[in-house]
Amino acid sequence: MEKIPVAVLGATGTVGQKFVLLLENHPYFEIQEVVASPKSAGKRYDEPCRWKQNRAIPAAVGSLTVKSTDQDLSSPLLFSGLDSSVAGALEERYARRGHFVISNSANHRMDPDVPLIIPEINHDHLEIIQTQPYEGAIVTNSNCSTMFMAMALAPLDREFGVEAVQVTTMQAITGAGYPGVPSMDILNNVVPYIGGEEEKMEIETQKILGKFSSDRIIPADINISAQCNRVPVFDGHLETLSIRLRNKAPLEDVVRILRDFRGLPQEIGLPSAPASPLVVFEDQTRPQPARDVWLNRGMSTLIGRVRECSIFDIKMVVMGHNTIRGAAGAAVLNAETVLKKGYLCDTSGILSRWEEQLISR
Amino acid sequence: MEKIPVAVLGATGTVGQKFVLLLENHPYFEIQEVVASPKSAGKRYDEPCRWKQNRAIPAAVGSLTVKSTDQDLSSPLLFSGLDSSVAGALEERYARRGHFVISNSANHRMDPDVPLIIPEINHDHLEIIQTQPYEGAIVTNSNCSTMFMAMALAPLDREFGVEAVQVTTMQAITGAGYPGVPSMDILNNVVPYIGGEEEKMEIETQKILGKFSSDRIIPADINISAQCNRVPVFDGHLETLSIRLRNKAPLEDVVRILRDFRGLPQEIGLPSAPASPLVVFEDQTRPQPARDVWLNRGMSTLIGRVRECSIFDIKMVVMGHNTIRGAAGAAVLNAETVLKKGYLCDTSGILSRWEEQLISR
Amino acid sequence: MEKIPVAVLGATGTVGQKFVLLLENHPYFEIQEVVASPKSAGKRYDEPCRWKQNRAIPAAVGSLTVKSTDQDLSSPLLFSGLDSSVAGALEERYARRGHFVISNSANHRMDPDVPLIIPEINHDHLEIIQTQPYEGAIVTNSNCSTMFMAMALAPLDREFGVEAVQVTTMQAITGAGYPGVPSMDILNNVVPYIGGEEEKMEIETQKILGKFSSDRIIPADINISAQCNRVPVFDGHLETLSIRLRNKAPLEDVVRILRDFRGLPQEIGLPSAPASPLVVFEDQTRPQPARDVWLNRGMSTLIGRVRECSIFDIKMVVMGHNTIRGAAGAAVLNAETVLKKGYLCDTSGILSRWEEQLISR
Amino acid sequence: MEKIPVAVLGATGTVGQKFVLLLENHPYFEIQEVVASPKSAGKRYDEPCRWKQNRAIPAAVGSLTVKSTDQDLSSPLLFSGLDSSVAGALEERYARRGHFVISNSANHRMDPDVPLIIPEINHDHLEIIQTQPYEGAIVTNSNCSTMFMAMALAPLDREFGVEAVQVTTMQAITGAGYPGVPSMDILNNVVPYIGGEEEKMEIETQKILGKFSSDRIIPADINISAQCNRVPVFDGHLETLSIRLRNKAPLEDVVRILRDFRGLPQEIGLPSAPASPLVVFEDQTRPQPARDVWLNRGMSTLIGRVRECSIFDIKMVVMGHNTIRGAAGAAVLNAETVLKKGYLCDTSGILSRWEEQLISR
Repeated sequence: MEKIPVAVLGATGTVGQKFVLLLENHPYFEIQEVVASPKSAGKRYDEPCRWKQNRAIPAAVGSLTVKSTDQDLSSPLLFSGLDSSVAGALEERYARRGHFVISNSANHRMDPDVPLIIPEINHDHLEIIQTQPYEGAIVTNSNCSTMFMAMALAPLDREFGVEAVQVTTMQAITGAGYPGVPSMDILNNVVPYIGGEEEKMEIETQKILGKFSSDRIIPADINISAQCNRVPVFDGHLETLSIRLRNKAPLEDVVRILRDFRGLPQEIGLPSAPASPLVVFEDQTRPQPARDVWLNRGMSTLIGRVRECSIFDIKMVVMGHNTIRGAAGAAVLNAETVLKKGYLCDTSGILSRWEEQLISR
Repeated sequence: MEKIPVAVLGATGTVGQKFVLLLENHPYFEIQEVVASPKSAGKRYDEPCRWKQNRAIPAAVGSLTVKSTDQDLSSPLLFSGLDSSVAGALEERYARRGHFVISNSANHRMDPDVPLIIPEINHDHLEIIQTQPYEGAIVTNSNCSTMFMAMALAPLDREFGVEAVQVTTMQAITGAGYPGVPSMDILNNVVPYIGGEEEKMEIETQKILGKFSSDRIIPADINISAQCNRVPVFDGHLETLSIRLRNKAPLEDVVRILRDFRGLPQEIGLPSAPASPLVVFEDQTRPQPARDVWLNRGMSTLIGRVRECSIFDIKMVVMGHNTIRGAAGAAVLNAETVLKKGYLCDTSGILSRWEEQLISR
Repeated sequence: MEKIPVAVLGATGTVGQKFVLLLENHPYFEIQEVVASPKSAGKRYDEPCRWKQNRAIPAAVGSLTVKSTDQDLSSPLLFSGLDSSVAGALEERYARRGHFVISNSANHRMDPDVPLIIPEINHDHLEIIQTQPYEGAIVTNSNCSTMFMAMALAPLDREFGVEAVQVTTMQAITGAGYPGVPSMDILNNVVPYIGGEEEKMEIETQKILGKFSSDRIIPADINISAQCNRVPVFDGHLETLSIRLRNKAPLEDVVRILRDFRGLPQEIGLPSAPASPLVVFEDQTRPQPARDVWLNRGMSTLIGRVRECSIFDIKMVVMGHNTIRGAAGAAVLNAETVLKKGYLCDTSGILSRWEEQLISR
Repeated sequence: MEKIPVAVLGATGTVGQKFVLLLENHPYFEIQEVVASPKSAGKRYDEPCRWKQNRAIPAAVGSLTVKSTDQDLSSPLLFSGLDSSVAGALEERYARRGHFVISNSANHRMDPDVPLIIPEINHDHLEIIQTQPYEGAIVTNSNCSTMFMAMALAPLDREFGVEAVQVTTMQAITGAGYPGVPSMDILNNVVPYIGGEEEKMEIETQKILGKFSSDRIIPADINISAQCNRVPVFDGHLETLSIRLRNKAPLEDVVRILRDFRGLPQEIGLPSAPASPLVVFEDQTRPQPARDVWLNRGMSTLIGRVRECSIFDIKMVVMGHNTIRGAAGAAVLNAETVLKKGYLCDTSGILSRWEEQLISR
């Protein structure tokens, strides 16, 4: 069965490298094009790339010639790990030309006609792409810190209503890309500030948990107040949450609702879906980044210390793999969702030859 | 002018070592006795002690013979860094025998007749020692994480009233003593649990900010909800606070009140008092443990990112040196306060010969 | 096909836990007994065990009842991760009672009649067990730092002769077990001393590279001078080597000899054998612990920067996974070797029923 | 008494910042000019500067207007922390114009007419500046890793002759400047390569320990083989040395010679001179970067574990503060030496008015 040829935009960057790894041997997608800035273009992928992954560059990708962001692409589906300094205009241009852009970049996340998707939560928001003025489409996933909080809040909001959340993050250095955080700033240290991060957590969560109504997404009425910190940890963002619910609930119901949470990716068995989107620990010293970040291939959101809050209702610790479920893995899961829900065929004529066999898989 | 001879209890431990350093060349106090567990007793101090400080053991202390906790002591004033497994009974015994015990241990902090003192905030609580059944007395200082939060809250509570606080800590490894946290548990990691710490922060703060009324301390009506984490940082606890005020206040007033805060130690110029109990940073990336922990000899509480909270009223970052102002330094400042307020003479007949000259200093 | 029932001695410790992981789904061996100190005995394995691995305790082992080191065991083959304070006497006792002990402990490594085995190098030394006074036998593997150096030296010694080696190690914290190195001693630090380590590297290497002659092992005449350091790295010992050869060799020959090195485990395809015992990097910034330690499941020795030395002949960097190939993985590979070479049947009557099918595998 | 006005070149960089700190309240020198790249020029020093020190910018320097490297300077003495990409040409230009350049940059270190000075060892090499073709002069200090090895070797070479040295370094991240080493490359890791470092250690040491003969410096005949590694440590380079002596010496003589070593800075009491250039530890676990790096204000070279080597003669551990004695502090001590030996007056007419009073101090 033929796979859909895809391109990775920003392929030499930190997120781009994760795309290359996650798409190796993917059952639906095959990397056919790698795209980077003009200064890398024309070389083999494994030449300019400062490869920072623990596994080697997949051979089939390593030998591809890097294309420039100036060039036309033939792949119908694009995974974008472009830097935010260029992602805005480039992703639009690709979408106008008929490509379906699955983007991890922040630029278009808050556009009214661009869905900000976590498939377990709001895959119905994908419908908004019908209002996009492009021949193709743009679909985004959330900021890494938003991801784990939104995953934990979604089932609680659905069941009890979430009114307000105080959240403090302890974020890994890989969240800042490469070269990213200078070691002199973070070794043996905590930096209590990450530019733009707190605002993203506050507004993205409202959009993700919002309702799709005919032609627009109505943000959820949840008040979020975030405080973001960088800590000397390689992979894994950890967050403490205090949650005010609209309808009080006994602690055991909260835990049960979290444990039982399943979404579309689990129901239809998407290849990148974790068996459980949420894993709730009983050991009160967990989750911990160094020990738990690779649980379920880095695709689950890990929850611990669910307990009562003397001010709000519920406190808990939330953790996840910031560059997998918090970035490239989220985008791949979005692409799988888009494909299985048939949007890829709707928007991109190029896909017609894969259409039937893909839907039927 | 003669100095008051003092003893250090638990002298070989982490807090005990800090006492030894902070009391070197102290204008009021001179270490005359070092006390440790029976297995260290009888040896020179510098033999059994696994000294972990960056400066060498002061020579005068290094050559002292370690006394056992079983032995009688001649020093009127005792600094206790005893382990909580033994501090409870031992401190009581010393107080009964007429010693004035300045304790950093948690055991007696919440006793109704034991004051929990931060001299900038509640030195009037010292009066409660009159109700203690001892010939001597016990005075305690707070937990390290409590310290920095209480310091930041005190001026706000006085001026605007504090109703509720959500706090998340990122605590240094030295807070757990030696050997303390195994490196396998914390290198490249965050541990989202510190036993007993959250409870201490919640109840100790209420006592410290409480009111002394005739013969008892009435806890402040402040609702605190804490989430405590260990991070791979050597010295310096960092905390994020979200504060609900009783009376709304413009942000600039809050900053001004914090900046202008002064207390008794500053007014009477105690030797260990920092010029400013609170230092407010404008640089939004500060305070940071690795860079700022030694500001004002580790005796100030450092505040950054004072800003509005979309849920409560004010958010901020608070930081301080956990083993100096958060432990041994707090105790030394308490001892200086106790001395200058005349309590040492009241309670301990032993002190009579120093009485006049000490008060007059 | 039936598997050989085995016991893990010191099963709750750091090395013991690695044995439990490495023996999960092993084609030859199956854990039937877990043995620990009397204070853990009688409980389920998953109760007393402070499990520090990234994967969960295999269910079949978690439910086993821990046996005491006082009890008799029924498994013919024992994997020993016993603490050196007890391993000496206990391993002897087990061997006397007919068990075949595959030990990672240091106690018996230098006994004249105990082979110190790296199967790629000196599996012929196994013959020495015929001289052991036990009904069973004891076979040991080397110290973790010895392992990687010996692996790199073996092919060079065979081809050119090795005369002298200056080696400096940078060793991971997991090498000290749990709780092991206190975080206060190693965070942001290097400790230039590891008790006993330098001596082990010097004498163990001579024994491993020595010759088996009728009834004894004649140590190799190689002068080794080691300097051992602890660094803040979780897994992976890195070593710099300067090597004096007996017969000069061009650099490209040295590299080729290293690259082409293969041993018995590769030839007969033992389940735990890495495809290449040595991996030689061309990138001069490699190998690095954080990036390369899991290459070939942690079973290869990684070599980089092979270059000429202005004093001796060859310099290089050597690295490996200290708790896998440097400890538990080495023992498992030894057990596989012992089994395939038929020694298990020779020494332990208990094994007769597996004998034929095992040899033929 | 008037101080000599000085300029700091590359004042906003890592070494430049250290110069600013070390020259605060210096008895001889006063910063009058701060010089940086054209893009910082024209601003106040405290604006463009990403200040990374633990103490605040000295007020008098913070308010200076940054001059461009294009502008003429009025200070007779310049401290250069210029980046190696520009230091070569710029330092020459300044020297031609009559300035005395005290440089920490590598560019001119190996020029035949430029002295590479460690005042305790080879202050007589300063005489070579008479052969420089400049109106002013250039004097350099060594690479940070060279510094500590050369300091340890110098007294041994003088007494016993040093023939060969195998050295392995474990270097701190601050050695790479800011932003320098990306945290993703070094957290929980060791990088076994630092570009150019090994060559510098080998040739610089030969020059420093060389002999000045009429008009040239004859390199010492010492064979050095270096292996350089970066470790996750903030400040403090640690090195293991194996040393072959020309004349064998008992261990106690070696230790005594190291302990007793003193040089010109100690004899004439230069302000930045450590009381002991070498500190020899008896505790075999020391020196350690995190604990000992600030000993003697970071100006001593710390030595531990002096012991016999089974291959060469002596092994030891050497450590020092890489940005103080290994960089800016070395340059300041060089400037003090230059001044007290009268070279400043010889070469720079500008200095005539300070001449007499300076020499007489």
